Amino acid sequence: MSFAQIEDLGRKLEALDHAQAMLGVDEAVQMPVGGGEKRAEALSMLAGFYHELATAPEVADWIDAAERGSLDANGQASVREFRRVYTNMTCLSADFVRRQVNARVRCEQLWRELRPKGDWAGFLPAFEGVVALMREEAALRAAALRLAPYDALMEQYDPGNRAADIAPVFAELKAFLKDFVPQAMAHQDERLAKRPLKPFNAPFPIERQKALGHAMMEAVGFDFTHGRLDISHHPFCGGVPSDVRMTTRYVTGEFLSALMGILHETGHGLYEQGLPSEWSHMPVGRARGMAMHESQSLFVEMQVSRSPEFWHWAMPVVAQHLGEEALKGWDVDDVLSYVHRIKPGFIRVDADEATYPLHVILRFEMEQDLVSGKLAAKDIPEAWNAKMTDYLGLSTLDNPKDGPMQDVHWPSGAFGYFPSYTLGALTAAQLWAALERDQPSARDDISNGRFVGLNDWRRRNIWSQASLWSTPDLLERATGERLQTKYFIQHLKRRYLS
Amino acid sequence: MSFAQIEDLGRKLEALDHAQAMLGVDEAVQMPVGGGEKRAEALSMLAGFYHELATAPEVADWIDAAERGSLDANGQASVREFRRVYTNMTCLSADFVRRQVNARVRCEQLWRELRPKGDWAGFLPAFEGVVALMREEAALRAAALRLAPYDALMEQYDPGNRAADIAPVFAELKAFLKDFVPQAMAHQDERLAKRPLKPFNAPFPIERQKALGHAMMEAVGFDFTHGRLDISHHPFCGGVPSDVRMTTRYVTGEFLSALMGILHETGHGLYEQGLPSEWSHMPVGRARGMAMHESQSLFVEMQVSRSPEFWHWAMPVVAQHLGEEALKGWDVDDVLSYVHRIKPGFIRVDADEATYPLHVILRFEMEQDLVSGKLAAKDIPEAWNAKMTDYLGLSTLDNPKDGPMQDVHWPSGAFGYFPSYTLGALTAAQLWAALERDQPSARDDISNGRFVGLNDWRRRNIWSQASLWSTPDLLERATGERLQTKYFIQHLKRRYLS
Repeated sequence: MSFAQIEDLGRKLEALDHAQAMLGVDEAVQMPVGGGEKRAEALSMLAGFYHELATAPEVADWIDAAERGSLDANGQASVREFRRVYTNMTCLSADFVRRQVNARVRCEQLWRELRPKGDWAGFLPAFEGVVALMREEAALRAAALRLAPYDALMEQYDPGNRAADIAPVFAELKAFLKDFVPQAMAHQDERLAKRPLKPFNAPFPIERQKALGHAMMEAVGFDFTHGRLDISHHPFCGGVPSDVRMTTRYVTGEFLSALMGILHETGHGLYEQGLPSEWSHMPVGRARGMAMHESQSLFVEMQVSRSPEFWHWAMPVVAQHLGEEALKGWDVDDVLSYVHRIKPGFIRVDADEATYPLHVILRFEMEQDLVSGKLAAKDIPEAWNAKMTDYLGLSTLDNPKDGPMQDVHWPSGAFGYFPSYTLGALTAAQLWAALERDQPSARDDISNGRFVGLNDWRRRNIWSQASLWSTPDLLERATGERLQTKYFIQHLKRRYLS
Repeated sequence: MSFAQIEDLGRKLEALDHAQAMLGVDEAVQMPVGGGEKRAEALSMLAGFYHELATAPEVADWIDAAERGSLDANGQASVREFRRVYTNMTCLSADFVRRQVNARVRCEQLWRELRPKGDWAGFLPAFEGVVALMREEAALRAAALRLAPYDALMEQYDPGNRAADIAPVFAELKAFLKDFVPQAMAHQDERLAKRPLKPFNAPFPIERQKALGHAMMEAVGFDFTHGRLDISHHPFCGGVPSDVRMTTRYVTGEFLSALMGILHETGHGLYEQGLPSEWSHMPVGRARGMAMHESQSLFVEMQVSRSPEFWHWAMPVVAQHLGEEALKGWDVDDVLSYVHRIKPGFIRVDADEATYPLHVILRFEMEQDLVSGKLAAKDIPEAWNAKMTDYLGLSTLDNPKDGPMQDVHWPSGAFGYFPSYTLGALTAAQLWAALERDQPSARDDISNGRFVGLNDWRRRNIWSQASLWSTPDLLERATGERLQTKYFIQHLKRRYLS
């Protein structure tokens, strides 16, 4: 009975989730500007209904009773996840959440206004308020979850992430990358000297790029009866597992950015579409966390779609949709020159896969100090500059816009999220290595446009497992090992030094 | 306090309405087919939340208390409407509603399957169940509302509609139209003999038709910061007043159907956009009813957009968007020949404005007999045939698909809705006449593409008045008279006999 009550509540929450997700997609894709005020009201009201239902005191009784009942392994995992989500939702008081939401919304609005001007001084007071509340939140969560404060924050995005486990992994990766990036760039310079980048045979009409994107999505396994591709300013993968809404944006001067973006989001979309639909109303049926989600997008983008094997297959597909002229005079190596380009820069979201982890590690290190109080908000620009200079040889002191003001995460109060990006990259490489052990023909399959085996492997090992296991356990069950840096490092060496 | 409680509830219901409306639009416009099952679950769950909140017993206490409080005229109207909606929602038991929804959904599904085959016999058993429940509903509503059973059904769509008021109006209109239609057709034959219909200079690419539609919508006053135009299989006007979502469908062989359809829906959209936004969370802030809504769409479509004055202005606008070739060799009269074409036919939704009311009157007469039990469901085809033969000279005995099986209304349980269409047409003509008395330059304004004065008049007299008055009172305040047939009849004579 108590389990049935939990499931009943899960179905109500799923409906509210569905509405919120779809209204969010509509807002990003097509809502006229004047619809924004009422949309915001509707979304906040739905969030209120959700919170009220999900945190009702009787829910704790249902969970207690369900835990005492006799359940099979899946049922036990289901109740465990339900409790985890319930605990995470109820460990902050409604009053605290209201104060925090207000501070975050105001700070994010200010950030949108002041970032283009690089006005750190104007932004700082509001941001200090967000940091203070984040420290309060971390302490509250830490007490409820019996975790260290920073771990309690990461727990929201990747259950099981612990700084003590991540720090040595990131330290090793940082040491490697500080040497590797200059080495890979020297190698790249040699290659480009012999074979310069070819100019694009532009323009590429958007309708054709769209058709190409659709064809590639379908080829790698996206189910268009359960999803669509639209256009938005910031590409994302949203919606619900039964109806995945992906977006991209196009430029007519080149087609590779949009296409790689589409394939990245398709990786997210395949994960969502591969979740077990019979548990879609329960937390245990959701994707495991942000690192695992990012591993799925990076698997498709970095491991598969930027490989020479993929382009061996993809060249004629591109010609078919963009026209024979589009790739006239190009061969696979000309495409790879673009999609393997390494260039250290200020901006994380524009970074290549070799320098990206350094952006993340910088934030991971600073976040821990911000949470502990070792670093004050006002001292961020100097600390940021020191690390950027050390890791990538770039000074940001006079450029806060492209330094600590570049990301929306901190202004909006999301601390503890950044590690997921790089954990996802490491995970993707480790999954690929495991898959290739199990399916030695994997690269050959890609060359021939056969993606079914790759998807079956991920469906079996990752997608269908939803939230049955913690992130580390899920990875170990899939690959036989805890998280390693070596597969990512091997991947980089193979791609950029050979 | 009680009024504040009502407003607070109103805001919650508005948010749920917003979500349901937008999810409905998304489903019709772009949802992939596989998303349907979870969408249906989400919508039914949201409807459940809505019903639970809106019909809670304490709401009756709040309304009682608010009625005893001191309120200004708007406040009183607000509480009156709240009570009206509450009474209408609570006079059926939850158990009855569940039974009825099940029967309706099953019958409508069967209808979709059997209509193309014209299988009346296969459809009848399920439909008999719907009719039986409709009679039960009518009796329950009649008791709660102290109305005659058929009036109690009409009350859901147009508060204040009474068969005793409508019957003589429709009788007069029917008598007129039975003579008028043959007369107008003879006149039309003469005209077409002298000046045959010109073939369209097709094709008209969809992108250009879309741009033309946008331009016309904007010209007649649609605010694209609070709405959009998309494509769907069945055109509609949905969304919420702050974000009106209209749809149409295009064919490339001609452009007038889509354009007139767009202008029809724009009439609905202008009404929604013109409602007072400060009351958007209260029933009093909604559009007055289906007849008034239809009057607004028919005002724009029939009174304005099919007039010679409109086309005097519109010809160069069409040329600008579809190209000079599009109207090469056409003048205003060639367009009018198409948009004024009278042709009696089986199908209501395809009917011209002269024969349309006969379709509606037929249904109005039969509905009353169905509700009272004078007509059994099984005898509908014969009764339908008798009336179609009498009113339009068309026999439907061997063709139930294009006879009583053509509309979704009855299979889905919507009885009492049909009169609204023709009441809307009469209202539109009466409003036009009143407007022209107030603004003698109205036709001249249209010739010059000036729609602001027309909109100001409707905003003042109709849109801003939302649900402050009953439909008959609203019409009388706007035009100085109760509903008349004479303005519609004058309109038809002027357009089709001169």
